[in-house]
This record gives sequence, structure tokens and C-alpha cells, in this order.
Amino acid sequence: MSDIHIAIVGAGLVGSLAAISFSRQGYRVSVFESRPDPRHAGNTAGRSINLAVSARGLGAIRSIDPDLCDKIIRSSIPMKGRMIHVDGAQQSQIYGLFGECINSIDRSQLNLDLINEAETSTGVSFFFNHKLLSADFVSHKLRFGVTGQQHETEEIQADLTVGCDGAYSAVRKAMMKSQRMDFSQEYVEHAYLELSILPSEDGDYRLDKEHLHIWPRQEFMLIALPNPDKSFTSTLFAPFTLFNSLKTSQDVVQFFRSQFPDALEMIGEGRLIHIWEHNPVSPLIQIKCTPYHFGDSAILLGDATHAMVPFYGQGMNCGFEDIRVLNTLLQKHNISPDSFVNIDKALTGYTTCRHEDLLAILKLAMGNYVEMRSSVTSKLYLIRKRLDGILGRLFRDRWVPMYSMVSFRDDLRYSDVIKRQKRQDKIVEVILTATSSIAGLGLLSLIFTHYQSSWRLLLRKTLSQILRYL
Amino acid sequence: MSDIHIAIVGAGLVGSLAAISFSRQGYRVSVFESRPDPRHAGNTAGRSINLAVSARGLGAIRSIDPDLCDKIIRSSIPMKGRMIHVDGAQQSQIYGLFGECINSIDRSQLNLDLINEAETSTGVSFFFNHKLLSADFVSHKLRFGVTGQQHETEEIQADLTVGCDGAYSAVRKAMMKSQRMDFSQEYVEHAYLELSILPSEDGDYRLDKEHLHIWPRQEFMLIALPNPDKSFTSTLFAPFTLFNSLKTSQDVVQFFRSQFPDALEMIGEGRLIHIWEHNPVSPLIQIKCTPYHFGDSAILLGDATHAMVPFYGQGMNCGFEDIRVLNTLLQKHNISPDSFVNIDKALTGYTTCRHEDLLAILKLAMGNYVEMRSSVTSKLYLIRKRLDGILGRLFRDRWVPMYSMVSFRDDLRYSDVIKRQKRQDKIVEVILTATSSIAGLGLLSLIFTHYQSSWRLLLRKTLSQILRYL
Repeated sequence: MSDIHIAIVGAGLVGSLAAISFSRQGYRVSVFESRPDPRHAGNTAGRSINLAVSARGLGAIRSIDPDLCDKIIRSSIPMKGRMIHVDGAQQSQIYGLFGECINSIDRSQLNLDLINEAETSTGVSFFFNHKLLSADFVSHKLRFGVTGQQHETEEIQADLTVGCDGAYSAVRKAMMKSQRMDFSQEYVEHAYLELSILPSEDGDYRLDKEHLHIWPRQEFMLIALPNPDKSFTSTLFAPFTLFNSLKTSQDVVQFFRSQFPDALEMIGEGRLIHIWEHNPVSPLIQIKCTPYHFGDSAILLGDATHAMVPFYGQGMNCGFEDIRVLNTLLQKHNISPDSFVNIDKALTGYTTCRHEDLLAILKLAMGNYVEMRSSVTSKLYLIRKRLDGILGRLFRDRWVPMYSMVSFRDDLRYSDVIKRQKRQDKIVEVILTATSSIAGLGLLSLIFTHYQSSWRLLLRKTLSQILRYL
Repeated sequence: MSDIHIAIVGAGLVGSLAAISFSRQGYRVSVFESRPDPRHAGNTAGRSINLAVSARGLGAIRSIDPDLCDKIIRSSIPMKGRMIHVDGAQQSQIYGLFGECINSIDRSQLNLDLINEAETSTGVSFFFNHKLLSADFVSHKLRFGVTGQQHETEEIQADLTVGCDGAYSAVRKAMMKSQRMDFSQEYVEHAYLELSILPSEDGDYRLDKEHLHIWPRQEFMLIALPNPDKSFTSTLFAPFTLFNSLKTSQDVVQFFRSQFPDALEMIGEGRLIHIWEHNPVSPLIQIKCTPYHFGDSAILLGDATHAMVPFYGQGMNCGFEDIRVLNTLLQKHNISPDSFVNIDKALTGYTTCRHEDLLAILKLAMGNYVEMRSSVTSKLYLIRKRLDGILGRLFRDRWVPMYSMVSFRDDLRYSDVIKRQKRQDKIVEVILTATSSIAGLGLLSLIFTHYQSSWRLLLRKTLSQILRYL
């Protein structure tokens, strides 16, 4: 085993995959996680919004381990489009032009699978109940407190610390004490509450399982994603003010009855009240920071640098892509367990090239909330979607609708998505202007033909008048 | 003395003035400061850029204690304008249209004066070497560690905690743990180094003492502010890359010789090298956050919520204005030591009304850096300044140049400054467009008169041709 020791902080999705990735490259890897082992303790993860894994996430996993990628695809449920629920009717909006799907997957199960996969890999050790207390990145030392055992601390030495410890990252906090770092955290005015829809009495899905279901209601929305056990994980997104205004069980039932009567029937009144009283209303936070690394000693990946609102389904996908981008840079600078000396160049390269893309996806994720809860029901949106479909099928690689660029194309950088979309927007604008101009000219010429004698007369008279003054 | 206990964290400029303000209103006030007492320990304050106190700062002090305000004005040196040093020549740019000045003042001395004033006030106690460890704002409890005495902590109870503990505020950090808060910190690419210019050999100022001296050099600049002891406090602002490129004493002297030969002569080569080797190169940070309060229990004032780059000379002025704005709201909601129950309304009011203004001054401060180090030397800037002067003298209250709005008008909110300036910019644009249009038309009519017969002929011919087709 290599002498180079990689300490990964955080055994969540990104941390576990990073562990697999580094161990496959021959490094000695330790993973430190402040929570207890989820394989013994049940699901104690903070969040449980169902996940949709798509091209960027799968591409990253495949680049590390093709078999693992296949296994994950098999345990997921493909969703080919959104099902829009308005006025009791359902309307399907297909995501991809060529049958591409995003894949609903159980967050906790995926996490367990990745931890198990990592642990069976050569050279990976997991240390649960280990909470990072402080870090000295100059001397490469990390100090952990062992949860439940007062005063017990452990100090370890790591050649590289990889902070995958989420939005409230302790590695990031330690890094901010050690160097100048730009940082921002921003809460949106909206929160979420997780619900669920059980299978029907005859044991089947209660909604079409090939869709991500959305009940868009302008200022708020309900969504539902299919699970392999034929239930749906459902989430209500709404402003805090709305959650706060629902004070009694009666209020809650009444709200669902007026806004989501079909969903209420599927959830059941009793279960809704029970869930409402027991599940937390959770805030949504957005994190930005830069740089992402400290010298030759530490790097941040995943939510620690780019916690985002979940509306483009890209949080985990982007975190997995972080690992792939880092691996590309490790390769570019010929970093390996036997040649680790230029690691600072790879880390600097990561900060330099990744920032633009992370800002781009944060922006896209925020923008997609308005799309999901409101725009999807507008006429203009549907016209644009149709136009995108026609052009996308006609020009293939040269015209890719934005959703496809984000979700189905891991060869395009997030920042390029925004640039390409701006170009496409301009072309659409020209097409629409031209169309309406041609229509307008047609109308004018019709009028002109009809009244041409009188128009001519008027123009002759005016010009003659002007001529008299010259 | 009142039963209502106000705990102020931070005995800097804003904390000390807040202590005076609350004690004058009859509250029991304790001030906790992590540093030792500056009256015994010498100046250990983190920063020492000279300060310019102007209308907003003085207005706030006057609203609390007119005598104190007069005393502070007497200990300051009025600066009526900028002195621009370019190509060895000096050019004076007057700040106000009606003789208004900003006032150079010694930061440490002002701090000592405010602490002394507070301590002689009824009911104020100072606790130095007290570092905030944690806060429970729900139960109104603060826990302090006593510096130098290991394991010694003190817990106190406060009806209201006022966090005046600067850019790296511990109160703000505790507040961020207790509620959802938006927060951002941003470092600029530039840093500063403090220098000084001693009095001349015959004991006089070496530069005009009625000016703030600037050596603008586009990407960097040197400034100098007068002190009562006839020295100048001077500061070099430059990109980190520039500081890092000056590796040897030779480099430094060479840099000053080519860029600031006159300043180098006044500082002296030996002293310059000594200062360079001993004074730190300090970063510049910008802090934003919201909300500024926690329920009925805590509020943040000063740099804790709006650390800004020092280029508009508004950091302290804005912090003092924070206190005045809070006082106005305390009055509005009839808050007093005998009637403290509605304090949450005043605190909420502060968060609601102050945010827009703080964002505005942060933006203005950042913008003024480019003005100071670069624009002040441009022709267009000088034309605009002259136009502002003419209009400002002509229309007085209805046309106020931006610098005057920020520095000499404490009746205008920072956010109104930006709005008014946008209006004024538009009018200037119209004036300039009109001027150039009139000039253009004049030129055209001159040509026309000269060649009018041939023009007429051409126009007649063209119109006749068109008429033939109708």
C-alpha cells in the first residue's frame, strides 16, 4: 500500500465515492465521519429528498468504476419526464429528445452501497463518530473528537485532506481560519417538508412511475419521485410564511384539500396529519466559496463548496463531477502515490477551473425553482419547449435544450451551458421577431393592396407640398 | 439604576459609543472586550488606518452628547479636499461646495476618549480580557472566557446583547448558529501597509495639512492623512501580487523611487525599509449579513454587519449612524428602561430598514477605490466634477454631488444617495447629449447655409423621382 495518506472528512455520497476513487488509484485512504455508522444506526442523514442521478453523476461513477455504475443504474427508476398536475388533469412533459431519462434513487441506500463498496476496496478505513475539531493544514495535522467519549481526541497526519462534509463543512471552517477565503451562505425564503405516498392496496404504484410528478402552484409546489418499493417520496416546497400560517391539523388538511385534492387522497388525511406533526420543515441553503484548496494540503468537494437548492437535481451529480474533474487534474499533473510532489498544482488547477462552473450551476438551480413551480404551466414556456424540440432534433449536437445540456450531457461544462443557452435564446428571439415581422408585413401589404389608390394619393399630396417649399 | 441590563460585546469605537448612548438612556450597561484595556496595554487594536470622521459620525455623536461631539471635533484636523500628486505636481480637489470638511482623527485616541467618557457615565462597567465563548439568545445568557486564566469562564444574563465586535464578530457567529442568517465575506485582491511621514526638521507638516493626500497610480495608490503632532499617517494600497513582487529592501526602495519619489524623500529610505520589514501587509475584507437581530435578545452594529473597504471613509461613520438609527427606533416604539417589552419590534424594525442602506454604502465604498486610485486623474472626471459644482451651487438642495451626499449630509439615507445619483447621472447625460447635439446642429446648419442651393436641388430631384413612381 502507498505511503501517501488521504484523509476524507465526511462519509456521505461524495466522501464515499471519493474514497473509492482514491483507493482505486492506490492511495491509503481514511474516511472520518461525525455521525455513527449508518449501517448499524439506521438512516441518520440530515436530508432525505429523493435524488435523481443523471449523466454527470453516472459519468463520474463510470470513470471510477464501470461495474459500480451499472449496479447503481439497476437500483434506480428511470423517469422520462415531468408529469404536470393542474386542475385534476395530468400532462406529460418529456425531458429528453432522444429518450434520455433521469433516475430516481434512494439517497440512504445509495450511501450505504457506496460505503460498502469503499470498505471492500483495498486500503480504505472508516472512522465513524469522529468529528473534526481543528486542522493545521501547514503541518498536515487533523484533530478529531470521538463522539460520546468525552475528552477523547485523536490526531492524525494526512498528506491530503479532502473535505466532503457538506454545507456546514468543518474542513471549510478550518480552512477559512488558515487563509483568505470568500464565502457566502444564503437561505431562500422557501422551505421543504417530506411526505410520502404509499403503494395502492393492490400493491402497485399510485402514479405513473416513469415520471417525476409536479403539482405546480406558482408560489409553492408538491413533487413526487418513485421508489422501487412502489411508494413515492413526495416533497412540499413552500415559503416559510405559508408553513407558518398552517397552525392546526385542520388548516393542513384544508390546504391540501383545496390545492392538492388528488395527492391528499393518495397520502390519506390521517397519515398527512401524522407526517405534518413529526417531520421537520427544513430550510434550503445556498453556499458559495473560493478558493477550494489550501496549498498542497487540502481540498473541498461537494456541498461544502456548492450546497444548492435541489431544483435542478444537480447537487449530488455536481459533487460526483467534482471528483471526476479533480481526477482529470491529478492525471494532467501526473500525480500518483509514487509521485505526489506536484499535488499543489492539481489543487490550484481545480480552484481555477471549477469556480466558474459551480457558480453557473448554483444560478441554474435557483432559476429552475421558478420554472418548476410556475413556468411549466405557461403557454410561452410550452411554445419554447416545442421550438427547442424541433431545433434539437433537426440540428442535434448544435442545438441542445438547456435541460438536456445540464442533465444529459456530461461533456459540457455548466458554464458552457449558460453561454450556449444565451446564444440559443438570441436565435429564438430572432426567429420569433422574424416570424412576427413577416406576419405583420403580410397584413400591411393586404391593407395596402386594398386601399392602394387612396394611399398613393395621400403620399403624392404630401410630397408635392414639401416640394413647394424647396 | 435600571433593572434592564445591556451587554455590549466589543469596546471598539462603535461599542464604546453604544455604551455611552445606552447609559444616557438610563440602562445598566456592561461592556465585554476580548483585548486587554488599551489604557494600560498601549494600542493593540487590529487596524490603524487613520480615520476621517464626517457628518454621519458627528451627527450620531451629537445626537447622544453634543459636548462630546464638540470635543471630538476639536481634536481632529479638518481636510477640505484631496491633494492629487501626479508627475511631481500637486492639484487640489475641494470636497464640499460650501466649505464642508472631513476630519482626520487618530483612531486609538478616539477609542480611548470614548472608553473614558463611557466609564465616567452612570452605570457602565467595562470587562476587558473577556472573550465571548458562546451565547444562548433564547435564555439571554452569554458565556465568556477570561483571557490568560485557563478554564475560567463567566456566565452573565443580559436583556439585550449588542454585538459591536467587528468583522470577525463572535456575537454574529453565535447568532448564525441560532437562526437562519444570510452571510458573506469577500476579500478584495488588494491589501494595505501603513507607513508614516514624520514632521519636518523645523517641526512643521511636510505637506499641506488641510488635504487628504493621494498619489493615484491606477492599479495602486499611496495616501496620507494629517495628525495633530504634525506627522502624516500614510497608507499604501496595492494588489497582493504587487506586495509579493517586492522581495528585497532594494525592490521596495526602487519601487518608491520610481512611483513616489517625493513621498520617499519625506519618509526616508532607512525608515521605509524598517517599516516595510516590521509592519504587516493587511487584507481588506467586506462583510454582509442579514438579519441583524435575534428576537428580543440581540442586535449587531458596526463592522460586525458591514465591514467595508475604507475608500469612502465611511466605516466608522456608518457604525455610529447604526446607533442613531437604532435610537430612533427605540424612541418610535417607546422603549425605555421602564418599558422594555416591545424591544423586539424596534430590533425587527432595525433589520428591516437598515439593510438597504448598508448594502448601498458597501457598494459605494468599493466603487470609490477605483475613483481614488484612477478616475481622479481623468479629464472626464474633472468635467463632471465641475458640472456638479455649477449645478450644486445653482440648485443647492436639489443638486448635491455624490461625495457631499455621503460625507456631508446625514439627513440622506445611503440608499437614497444611490437613487439620487442615478437621477443626477441621467440629467447630466441629457445635458451632455443636448450640448453635443446643439453643437452638431450648429455645424450642420453652417454647412447647409454654405451649400444650400445644391442641397435643395438634390432634395427636389429625389422627391420628384419618388413622385413619378406613385
